[in-house]
Amino acid sequence: MAIMGAHARAASAVLANTPTKQKDAGLLCAAMVIRANAGDILEANEKDMANARAKGLSGAMLDRLSLDDARIEAMAKGIEAIAALPDPVGVRIAEWDRPNGLHIERVRTPLGTIGIIYESRPNVTADAAALCLKAGNAAILRGGSEATYSNHAIHEALVEGFLASNLPEHAVQLVETTDRAAVGEMLTGLDGAIDVIVPRGGKSLVARVQADARVPVFAHLEGVCHVYVDGAADLDMAKAIVVNAKMRRTGICGSAETLLVDKACASTHLAPLVNALIEAGCEVRGDAATQAADARVIAAIDSDWATEYLDAIIAVHVVDGVAAAIKHINTYGSHHTEAIVTNDQAVADRFLNTLDSAILLHNASTQFADGGEFGMGAEIGIATGKFHARGPVGVEQLTSFKYIVRGSGQVRP
Amino acid sequence: MAIMGAHARAASAVLANTPTKQKDAGLLCAAMVIRANAGDILEANEKDMANARAKGLSGAMLDRLSLDDARIEAMAKGIEAIAALPDPVGVRIAEWDRPNGLHIERVRTPLGTIGIIYESRPNVTADAAALCLKAGNAAILRGGSEATYSNHAIHEALVEGFLASNLPEHAVQLVETTDRAAVGEMLTGLDGAIDVIVPRGGKSLVARVQADARVPVFAHLEGVCHVYVDGAADLDMAKAIVVNAKMRRTGICGSAETLLVDKACASTHLAPLVNALIEAGCEVRGDAATQAADARVIAAIDSDWATEYLDAIIAVHVVDGVAAAIKHINTYGSHHTEAIVTNDQAVADRFLNTLDSAILLHNASTQFADGGEFGMGAEIGIATGKFHARGPVGVEQLTSFKYIVRGSGQVRP
Repeated sequence: MAIMGAHARAASAVLANTPTKQKDAGLLCAAMVIRANAGDILEANEKDMANARAKGLSGAMLDRLSLDDARIEAMAKGIEAIAALPDPVGVRIAEWDRPNGLHIERVRTPLGTIGIIYESRPNVTADAAALCLKAGNAAILRGGSEATYSNHAIHEALVEGFLASNLPEHAVQLVETTDRAAVGEMLTGLDGAIDVIVPRGGKSLVARVQADARVPVFAHLEGVCHVYVDGAADLDMAKAIVVNAKMRRTGICGSAETLLVDKACASTHLAPLVNALIEAGCEVRGDAATQAADARVIAAIDSDWATEYLDAIIAVHVVDGVAAAIKHINTYGSHHTEAIVTNDQAVADRFLNTLDSAILLHNASTQFADGGEFGMGAEIGIATGKFHARGPVGVEQLTSFKYIVRGSGQVRP
Repeated sequence: MAIMGAHARAASAVLANTPTKQKDAGLLCAAMVIRANAGDILEANEKDMANARAKGLSGAMLDRLSLDDARIEAMAKGIEAIAALPDPVGVRIAEWDRPNGLHIERVRTPLGTIGIIYESRPNVTADAAALCLKAGNAAILRGGSEATYSNHAIHEALVEGFLASNLPEHAVQLVETTDRAAVGEMLTGLDGAIDVIVPRGGKSLVARVQADARVPVFAHLEGVCHVYVDGAADLDMAKAIVVNAKMRRTGICGSAETLLVDKACASTHLAPLVNALIEAGCEVRGDAATQAADARVIAAIDSDWATEYLDAIIAVHVVDGVAAAIKHINTYGSHHTEAIVTNDQAVADRFLNTLDSAILLHNASTQFADGGEFGMGAEIGIATGKFHARGPVGVEQLTSFKYIVRGSGQVRP
């Protein structure tokens, strides 16, 4: 691994000063090679799928692992979309003048080398590498052993594309999954060669990375996201938002896991909200008030309030106004994403200002917690930490900055 | 320490939503109490000084430790200056609209709890606590044992001032220096209660914190800062900048430690630059070319290029143009602050764009590497890491952010 670290450091020094055009050309070449090599990639993926079936992997895992022509085309299109994004490197974030005539600029720079540790989905190989490269960073990728052949085939295509544009050979490196010690070594930062680790995968992977990493980590452990329906909420809007927040896609981190209903509107709103969820195919686990509102509601136990189901299940609790909703979220939430539905602006402001989650929404679905939906183009994940990157992590969040100070001979008195 | 962590967490939750006026009133009260308690503080300081003299501490250390009326007044004025700064919390850093009508704002929030581990200077107790409070953070301070009495007296005044403004009792906590395990516990983050550690002190303290901390650290290990005098430099400007960068104050992290001179101007510039430094009282250690230019130059050895003297000593090396200067700085520098003196804009741009130090200056002294000089009002230190805060760490850098998304019933398709 030490040699990979040294290679990444050398590549990142070159990438930090590589012109936008060359980076974008490399990305477009990589997309072309991925399309051209579709046959090889699918063949490699078939080997992974055969191994996975032999090992008895679940249907959901097989689905995440499998590639087809449409998924390969989506991968190529994803890289092209990243090429089309504005280059964050070199952008002046701020500038000001000092009374002594000094002109100060804060300018974006790459972070250095990003280590990505991920599972299952082979498209992460292409997405993550492209995002890192766009922001002038080198990448060290460590995918899951179940996707070894697919990841190698995709990595080969990326490198071929990057080399065609004269980008450094080690801009993107793939760690052999047979190297069992590699993850542990990456988490130490490879003696300063890795600047940040991004884990992509299940909770146990993220938990291990967060516990053991000696370098910064961009991640969220879980998304226990809440929708609070306030007494001043429009019922139709609340129904639409709650059902969308829970059921549009249940497996993503921004899906709602708990519905809080203000007792001020429970008599009018609770039963229709529960009914809408159940009709949409959702299991509802509720407190006594919620069970009283609908006989189909299952009794919630304490652990339900802190559970990320990632499934068609929701916990429902009646609370005494926005203060109680805030208290509940502070007690059980994961600081990821919470929404309030209300027509009372003052209540909304209290919710938005008081809570400290990465994303807070008023009258909108929690499923908007996504870099694409935020207009960032693409994301490498969502971070719930308070350092550097919070919320969706796109190309801008994969940069640092430096100060450039221009003078005319100033000395400090 | 666990109870201090719990107290800090509770205090930071209150401070996160404390109005600007109340925070500023608390700071102004604290400044008043520091002035009113000047007698007590000086008496406490005399105890520390007596102990320090008995222990045979060096004159420089005694000077850093000692307080007098002027230094106490400066402390009070420093707190008032922080009160006068704009409140960073709640400020909208960015906002934009999405095609679906969602309005997205990125809004500053406090970081949480800042742990500060420092040595000698008792004024850090007041400065650091005030900066943390201004940004809505709780602080846990751990000063040096040599300043125990002084730090306690200052801390008492701060708490009295904060309480008078109804700020939480545990907004600023001072760790007993008799608790030998405290530093180690702080570095683990106190089970999530400390969000970032700021070390203030000598290189061994910073190195220990960087090596052992399991939470983010804002720090610089050392400032091996360079001035590069290019072939197209004006000699008078170069002399003024070099002498100021080295000699204005030799003990600060932004003072220059190495002078690089372009061989294109060595015949005209090298001897006068060396002479100006020696006349200003600086010892010059140089390579063969520099020794040839002035008989008073001492031969530099390899370690000189990587040494932070923090003293009236400078290493001088003749290089072959800006490319060689960049290579030298990348090899021996500490990514803190570097300056170029030149009238060639293209050469300056190459230096400023290519190097990756926290601060890069053109035609100005490296001694401007300071939060006050940058217009940030006050700083808790200078960071050379690439995460979150880089360069001077002022109140803005002690904040995080969250996203507030305002909709009108949007659901994600």
